Amino acid sequence: MTPRPAPAELYVEVQQFYARQMHLLDAGRLDEFAGTFTPDGSHQPSPDKPPAYGRADIVAAIRQFDERYRDDPVVRRHWFNMLCVAPDDDGSIRADYYALVVATRPGVQPIIPTSCLVHDVLHRVEGRLYVRSRRIDHDQSRVVQLAGASRG
Amino acid sequence: MTPRPAPAELYVEVQQFYARQMHLLDAGRLDEFAGTFTPDGSHQPSPDKPPAYGRADIVAAIRQFDERYRDDPVVRRHWFNMLCVAPDDDGSIRADYYALVVATRPGVQPIIPTSCLVHDVLHRVEGRLYVRSRRIDHDQSRVVQLAGASRG
Amino acid sequence: MTPRPAPAELYVEVQQFYARQMHLLDAGRLDEFAGTFTPDGSHQPSPDKPPAYGRADIVAAIRQFDERYRDDPVVRRHWFNMLCVAPDDDGSIRADYYALVVATRPGVQPIIPTSCLVHDVLHRVEGRLYVRSRRIDHDQSRVVQLAGASRG
Repeated sequence: MTPRPAPAELYVEVQQFYARQMHLLDAGRLDEFAGTFTPDGSHQPSPDKPPAYGRADIVAAIRQFDERYRDDPVVRRHWFNMLCVAPDDDGSIRADYYALVVATRPGVQPIIPTSCLVHDVLHRVEGRLYVRSRRIDHDQSRVVQLAGASRG
Repeated sequence: MTPRPAPAELYVEVQQFYARQMHLLDAGRLDEFAGTFTPDGSHQPSPDKPPAYGRADIVAAIRQFDERYRDDPVVRRHWFNMLCVAPDDDGSIRADYYALVVATRPGVQPIIPTSCLVHDVLHRVEGRLYVRSRRIDHDQSRVVQLAGASRG
Repeated sequence: MTPRPAPAELYVEVQQFYARQMHLLDAGRLDEFAGTFTPDGSHQPSPDKPPAYGRADIVAAIRQFDERYRDDPVVRRHWFNMLCVAPDDDGSIRADYYALVVATRPGVQPIIPTSCLVHDVLHRVEGRLYVRSRRIDHDQSRVVQLAGASRG
């Protein structure tokens, strides 16, 4: 069964939502970034970690992550692509897409530290989109599983 | 002559078509991937190789390629970008775009093994898009030609 | 204040404009590339350099840059992503987006020499979009500033 394509208006709205959300994240505007989640929204950075629930915990988890890079100046850009958008019957919207991070450090060319497959559920509240849940599957975790399976 | 932009509905439909097509390919769902080509569709992986014609041969060529990586666990993500869409008078659609592969292997950061310029012709059959032909020009081949020309 | 999303028609028109513009640039069709700027358009390749004004000077600056790579065959692809489009009240359009270059040289895998944040102002003239001004902020410059600030 081939899914029906999403209407152009919705698809473009989701593209713009993600563009703005990542500009906020990468500029360190974390409270505004968290404001793009529903108040009870969840953010699971990898399948083996518990999700953060709610905007305050989402910000706290990112600050904790960033703390590791306190003495390691880096500019990160999150890139999303190959976006699949599927409206559900209950009014929520599933979005599945590829993501990678482009990280620039002083004096060396940019690297891609991570490539992921991301699964979002978006809700519309008073006309605007918000992330209700985000699950991030890292290709690194998946390939380690593949390697284990091929050895096993 | 500047080409007229494609209508938004068509452009977004093509974006969604490619997103879904690459999710299928990268998940190893090869029969479904091949089903995004017309039954007589062609897939030419590089200008110096003959194209595969038809869904069965397209799948066979990919399996043969993947066989080389049997003992080399890798997760690949195909990224498309800078998409130009031009409807032709005969109802077919030309799509020209950049593509790269992001490849993740255990314990090392992702690499970009290949960057390409891709030329597709899409057909619409019973309301749905299919690839009628795909030609892939690898930047690696092109730069080797450039290097030869500058030495010559 | 959350900006209103741009209408789908406009957003897709900008996507197509950039796709075509970068295909021209990366194919070395510099006069056509410069023709995507208004006659008085400006192009500032980095904050510490003066902008080029007008199509002839934009082409000259690119030729001067390319001259450095005369004996270094390379295929470059410019990728844009995470595009934010905001129509202004005066009819101009602000576009802010991420950009990177994928560079392929003979015999080695592609690299990403540069990652940037780009700020454009687009004008519509007789129905078509043109760049009125482009300012490019390199992540490398920004991270060097960050490193200086964290040491300071």
